[in-house]
Amino acid sequence: MPPSGRPGTGARTRPPAEAPPRELVPLERAEALRLLGGAPFGRIVFTVRALPAIRPVNHLLADDTVVIRTHDGAALTMAALDGDDTGVVVAFEADAIDPVTRLGWSVVVTGFARPVTDPVRLARYRALLSPWVNATMDHMVAIQPDLVTGYRLTEGAAGVS
Amino acid sequence: MPPSGRPGTGARTRPPAEAPPRELVPLERAEALRLLGGAPFGRIVFTVRALPAIRPVNHLLADDTVVIRTHDGAALTMAALDGDDTGVVVAFEADAIDPVTRLGWSVVVTGFARPVTDPVRLARYRALLSPWVNATMDHMVAIQPDLVTGYRLTEGAAGVS
Repeated sequence: MPPSGRPGTGARTRPPAEAPPRELVPLERAEALRLLGGAPFGRIVFTVRALPAIRPVNHLLADDTVVIRTHDGAALTMAALDGDDTGVVVAFEADAIDPVTRLGWSVVVTGFARPVTDPVRLARYRALLSPWVNATMDHMVAIQPDLVTGYRLTEGAAGVS
Repeated sequence: MPPSGRPGTGARTRPPAEAPPRELVPLERAEALRLLGGAPFGRIVFTVRALPAIRPVNHLLADDTVVIRTHDGAALTMAALDGDDTGVVVAFEADAIDPVTRLGWSVVVTGFARPVTDPVRLARYRALLSPWVNATMDHMVAIQPDLVTGYRLTEGAAGVS
């Protein structure tokens, strides 16, 4: 790559008319969860052998938890199964930020992830959440939103008001 | 929220004509870095007090590292500064996945994050990378792509070929 390291498509990071800096306006928990629930997919953040790991995955906001499907060998499945009854702590992030206007939002839920074992919940979640990839995703992991943080990227006026 | 927990906008997660499951096709390192470098922004993943943390942030691929700006109080700045000379291990993720067609890509870089201290590099990176938010982002952190993983979500035929 060129010395600057920026490939041709890197121009996307600097729109012709660059948007002004945006204000970060914190989101209330309820609004943050509403936005997260409406996002088409998010990113699960966890730890594998003390290293940070992140995977895009589609999700479902159900029974006040963030539910995702995983497969047998998934690192997260293993981590959740290896955890004690309290589960393992993970983060789940979703955002919708327009790269040109630089307006949008980001929400992060942090909490314990536990395998869903109740057959009724499993059946309901499977009906509501189809895997996006061609893989057997038999496991369901429910993430408890112990901590919900989020913000909107707004124009200055809105941010100051 | 309703028992299903899915707000009205949740419909976005299930397009009227739902796309078929996609194939995950691993990306070569060079292609993965090219896609990452061309992404308008990504998400930095790190650890704060043993908890997973993730923040969207715009980036620059320069000198074979992923460069981001941070501010004085940023948890990542602290972590990077607190780390020994080897730095702290973080992940940086970018993706471009169409929620309707469910086609796209995702790339994750994992490696040591270190503060950029060389004045020449600092000046060059500051000129190339403007903060998206209205905050003083004096620090630059360079992430070494020790591990680069990524995949494309493709239609079956492409995935199988």
